[in-house]
Amino acid sequence: MSNPDTQAVKNYLLALQDSICKKLEAEDGGAVFVDDIWEREINPDKPGMTGGGYTRLLVNGNVIEQGGVNFSHVFGEKMPASATAHRPELAGRSFQAMGVSLVIHPKNPLIPTSHANVRFFIAEKEGEEPVWWFGGGYDLTPYYGYEEDCIAWHKTAQDACQPFGKDVYPRFKSWCDEYFYLKHRDEQRGIGGLFFDDLNKWGFEKSFKFLQSVGDSYCDAYLPIVAKRKKLVYTEIQREFQLYRRGRYVEYNLVYDRGTLFGLQSGGRTESILMSMPPLVKWKYNWKPEANSEEDRLYKYFLKPRDWVTI
Amino acid sequence: MSNPDTQAVKNYLLALQDSICKKLEAEDGGAVFVDDIWEREINPDKPGMTGGGYTRLLVNGNVIEQGGVNFSHVFGEKMPASATAHRPELAGRSFQAMGVSLVIHPKNPLIPTSHANVRFFIAEKEGEEPVWWFGGGYDLTPYYGYEEDCIAWHKTAQDACQPFGKDVYPRFKSWCDEYFYLKHRDEQRGIGGLFFDDLNKWGFEKSFKFLQSVGDSYCDAYLPIVAKRKKLVYTEIQREFQLYRRGRYVEYNLVYDRGTLFGLQSGGRTESILMSMPPLVKWKYNWKPEANSEEDRLYKYFLKPRDWVTI
Repeated sequence: MSNPDTQAVKNYLLALQDSICKKLEAEDGGAVFVDDIWEREINPDKPGMTGGGYTRLLVNGNVIEQGGVNFSHVFGEKMPASATAHRPELAGRSFQAMGVSLVIHPKNPLIPTSHANVRFFIAEKEGEEPVWWFGGGYDLTPYYGYEEDCIAWHKTAQDACQPFGKDVYPRFKSWCDEYFYLKHRDEQRGIGGLFFDDLNKWGFEKSFKFLQSVGDSYCDAYLPIVAKRKKLVYTEIQREFQLYRRGRYVEYNLVYDRGTLFGLQSGGRTESILMSMPPLVKWKYNWKPEANSEEDRLYKYFLKPRDWVTI
Repeated sequence: MSNPDTQAVKNYLLALQDSICKKLEAEDGGAVFVDDIWEREINPDKPGMTGGGYTRLLVNGNVIEQGGVNFSHVFGEKMPASATAHRPELAGRSFQAMGVSLVIHPKNPLIPTSHANVRFFIAEKEGEEPVWWFGGGYDLTPYYGYEEDCIAWHKTAQDACQPFGKDVYPRFKSWCDEYFYLKHRDEQRGIGGLFFDDLNKWGFEKSFKFLQSVGDSYCDAYLPIVAKRKKLVYTEIQREFQLYRRGRYVEYNLVYDRGTLFGLQSGGRTESILMSMPPLVKWKYNWKPEANSEEDRLYKYFLKPRDWVTI
């Protein structure tokens, strides 16, 4: 098995961040991304953790109310105990983690929120084979459902997986449905997409190619939807519903999302992690959509795991 | 040791809920509390859990933007495994939990948000002594600090503790500071107050009297502050800061608060648990207060554990 080319992954991730930001700016047509380069603060609870990141944020655009595209690369001298409990072979190893993570919150409630993440992890030890894996995916969270958008989103995801085997899309699509689920609401966060983790069985070359296929297809999946929906006029009621539904995004990320919780607990950079929070959110006690309304249809039809590609 | 009088606790809690709601309505002078009686939904993951609650909510008042005062009483046939890992003597027992929990989010950012909770837990088994304890407390979350309010709040808390021993207030005050701490922000949630749990060492009579002293003193601690600050005119900047700081309330409750997380994970009634969420919230990437501003002073002076009663 060839050794993983960490530098190649890093180069890809930085180029991906740049290309996604450029395409989003072009689609927005108003604001541009503002850059924030940060170094990991020294955390006395986690000695030997260093690194930094490159956070890019667009606010108050024509289309995007807030969008964050974050690159980070952190190093640890020693794997944290919590991470090695189930993988004792990693205990005592040094590690690196790098990734691009993004969340786009459009202003218009007829455009869905989207999230994407691609990441690489490697644990090393002098004189031993490195242990590494890739993870990532993307998922879509509409406020108003359009069947054709869901189909197109999933077809693009399927196309990105196709060269790697027929079973890849259905497996990572199901994983996504399982992952983005709010147990306390018995609701899906959105209409899903792809989610994968611990990917190394294909060897480095093929696994890295898959990561690139996922990363490169995100804009192909999302931007056509943005382009189509951004022209639609929305009502105050639709905007209210979006602000209310954004509460579910907050609940999911703070209660369940492993990346968010691991980041916050391990002394990650809070502002970059919580860039995923929507800029404006409402909670309403016991609010329920009117029967047979479009809002009701979102819950009953769209926020259910569904086979969108053979519909 | 006298057996605990569960019915007396329940009667007290219901009367407390009623009296707090009446006083808050009087102070608000606009809206009234709307009642919502619920029964615990059958949860297939938690067989044998029953009970219900009495949720009271005031929205869009003159003073209170949203305030929820919730009573609940739930029963379980068997202690959940997670709760008996550290207390094996409770394994296999049936239990009851009851309490009043409230969060008040005023409109005016010069009035602090407040939270209070009083609760009683009892685990029973035929032929054995029941195991029971009380818990609770209250804490204050200002957006703009007024020293005199913090002192008055803590003096009232101290007075409520005084008859039970000189060490009670300092102990439960420190516990509150430790509990309402956002590790990922290295910030206190507010200026504290009281927090206690597992209280039974005084025996039932005295412990219950203490619970009443805490419950009864909440309005004495909070309402004078509301009365004083509600007349003040606030600026748009102050309102913006309040909406931003409310994000910390959300972060705390969803990431750390044991009551919230236990409730959500154990199949509690989501809408009653998340009644604590503020009605409107903003997140802003990497926002920092201007040096020496009032907002800056909140962080640097007020949101630090401080001995307010001997200031």
